[in-house]
Amino acid sequence: MSQPSLTATAAPLTEIWRGTLLESLHLGHAVVCNGAGEVVQGWGDPATLIYPRSSCKMLQALPLLTSGAAARYGLTSEQLALACASHNAARIHVDRVRDWLDQLDLGAGDLRCGAQMPRDTEVLHALIKSDDSPCQIHNNCSGKHAGFLTLAQHLGAGPDYVESDHPVQQACRAAFEDSTGEDSPTYGIDGCSAPNFACTVTGLARAMGRFASAHRRSGREDEAAVALRSAMAAHPELVAGEGRACTALMRDMGGKVAVKTGAEGVFVAILPEQELGIALKVVDGATRAAECAIAALLVRLGALDKNSPSAKAYLNAPITNWNGIHCGEMRPAAELLARA
Amino acid sequence: MSQPSLTATAAPLTEIWRGTLLESLHLGHAVVCNGAGEVVQGWGDPATLIYPRSSCKMLQALPLLTSGAAARYGLTSEQLALACASHNAARIHVDRVRDWLDQLDLGAGDLRCGAQMPRDTEVLHALIKSDDSPCQIHNNCSGKHAGFLTLAQHLGAGPDYVESDHPVQQACRAAFEDSTGEDSPTYGIDGCSAPNFACTVTGLARAMGRFASAHRRSGREDEAAVALRSAMAAHPELVAGEGRACTALMRDMGGKVAVKTGAEGVFVAILPEQELGIALKVVDGATRAAECAIAALLVRLGALDKNSPSAKAYLNAPITNWNGIHCGEMRPAAELLARA
Repeated sequence: MSQPSLTATAAPLTEIWRGTLLESLHLGHAVVCNGAGEVVQGWGDPATLIYPRSSCKMLQALPLLTSGAAARYGLTSEQLALACASHNAARIHVDRVRDWLDQLDLGAGDLRCGAQMPRDTEVLHALIKSDDSPCQIHNNCSGKHAGFLTLAQHLGAGPDYVESDHPVQQACRAAFEDSTGEDSPTYGIDGCSAPNFACTVTGLARAMGRFASAHRRSGREDEAAVALRSAMAAHPELVAGEGRACTALMRDMGGKVAVKTGAEGVFVAILPEQELGIALKVVDGATRAAECAIAALLVRLGALDKNSPSAKAYLNAPITNWNGIHCGEMRPAAELLARA
Repeated sequence: MSQPSLTATAAPLTEIWRGTLLESLHLGHAVVCNGAGEVVQGWGDPATLIYPRSSCKMLQALPLLTSGAAARYGLTSEQLALACASHNAARIHVDRVRDWLDQLDLGAGDLRCGAQMPRDTEVLHALIKSDDSPCQIHNNCSGKHAGFLTLAQHLGAGPDYVESDHPVQQACRAAFEDSTGEDSPTYGIDGCSAPNFACTVTGLARAMGRFASAHRRSGREDEAAVALRSAMAAHPELVAGEGRACTALMRDMGGKVAVKTGAEGVFVAILPEQELGIALKVVDGATRAAECAIAALLVRLGALDKNSPSAKAYLNAPITNWNGIHCGEMRPAAELLARA
């Protein structure tokens, strides 16, 4: 399978300047959808097929709520935020996931995400100083996997919950296809070993638009969407951590907007006030470019103040060197900020 | 200043596959030049203006030799390799740079590259365990800067050797423009605070072609080029370090070829047997893509065995996850391997 559209019609999203020279350039595709799932604005080719990677964790968490598992286990808003998180494995994350597993009478060994060195400096250095190895709770996806284990237990299903034919993943696929409004043509194995279903950039933006407008509708799926987007926006520190774009952007938007990064240059946003959803994919997979582009679109749509700390950090990120000298900056492409 | 050519005519260089989907794609420009500085093959737009970043360290080291400084201070082949290095700050690097500074009656504080956390795991963990901070010797460019200090001392010039009007940088600029055959239109401040002069991809490949054919000519510059390329190829572990593409590729080519990475997706190669030079720039600045593309061109030109360990590691790098499961792979674009 080949996707010529991955670059053929990609649009400039993010520029890297050093001195007076455009040193590097990131192309991509970005789509804004309304609550009806219609494309409001697009850059590049909205029909490009992508893996949403971790940006779709709130879709993967839908069955946890619609199944009744979250209610049965009395999951808190913090736990729902962790189910949607790609966290730093700071103490606030690790402690809560361990408690969650305790609640299920399970342990780190029941996770299937694999061990990962923590991103959080304090926890990382503590591990290094004690010559210790990370465990699966340190994996940035351990909250999502605690959610998978909760659903598996609720369904009375087996322990290998990342297998594509496991009831948990079948439920995730159904929720994913329902939210994106597309049949997923394929899936890839994600960094945490769960299947990651492919969709178009439009499909991902459509799902975000539906999340953004879910409060206007009733039904289990819509209630679940409101609960998940609200949990993310209410606990920005649990969704990522200190120094991370998701956390900084959500903090600066005061609990009104949920955003989520995904590996290989994906970013999504859910804007309930505007009833709009955003999805974008940087063709080359660069996180720095996705962070800049989503900040630009949040400013464009009036959700993020362009003078807020996170806008300054991600919209026009200064490039400094080992001596702290300003060498250049990252900038969104003009088309992302220009009024339609 | 704007460079529409940065992507307008960029060619696919490196593909990222996951499952059956092309997940990400890297575009770029690549040029092969012969010893006469003529373009033999090109992909994308050879006239694109770029910063070579650390890929041009062997050009920045030329004045160290042509000035007579290297001979006066009795610099060894190891020191010349370090002058061209972006090293891991492993013990083999740090110890040699410290000795070099001792030789000059200088210390870490005389460097102007800034302090950088070491990339080498052993040295990094030792620093963390002792709650210590890195010093300027740990900066990946400290060998280049030891060379700058040697030249400054030889010239009797002042301590601020990274200023663009300092005799050391003026000599670097002259050597750079002479080697690339171009007047450099601008410079940026590099990560280590030294000026980094801009050139076209062709200019950079031309310089590498001249290095590759320098043994056919006589003169100070050509002797210096042979000494530097030979030092790099003879000490691959000093030019980068364990786990790095430069080191692995040069080891597998048995001392016959010198290669060098540069930040923001630049890679160069000097092939004396073929009397060819290569320069490439990945438009989005991704190192992974530059590593794959240079490996592909080295295989294409008969310098690297496609079954060697480094070819397997960089030409078709497997993408594995936290459980060690094979999720996909990196591949060079077909055009890079196809016969002309």
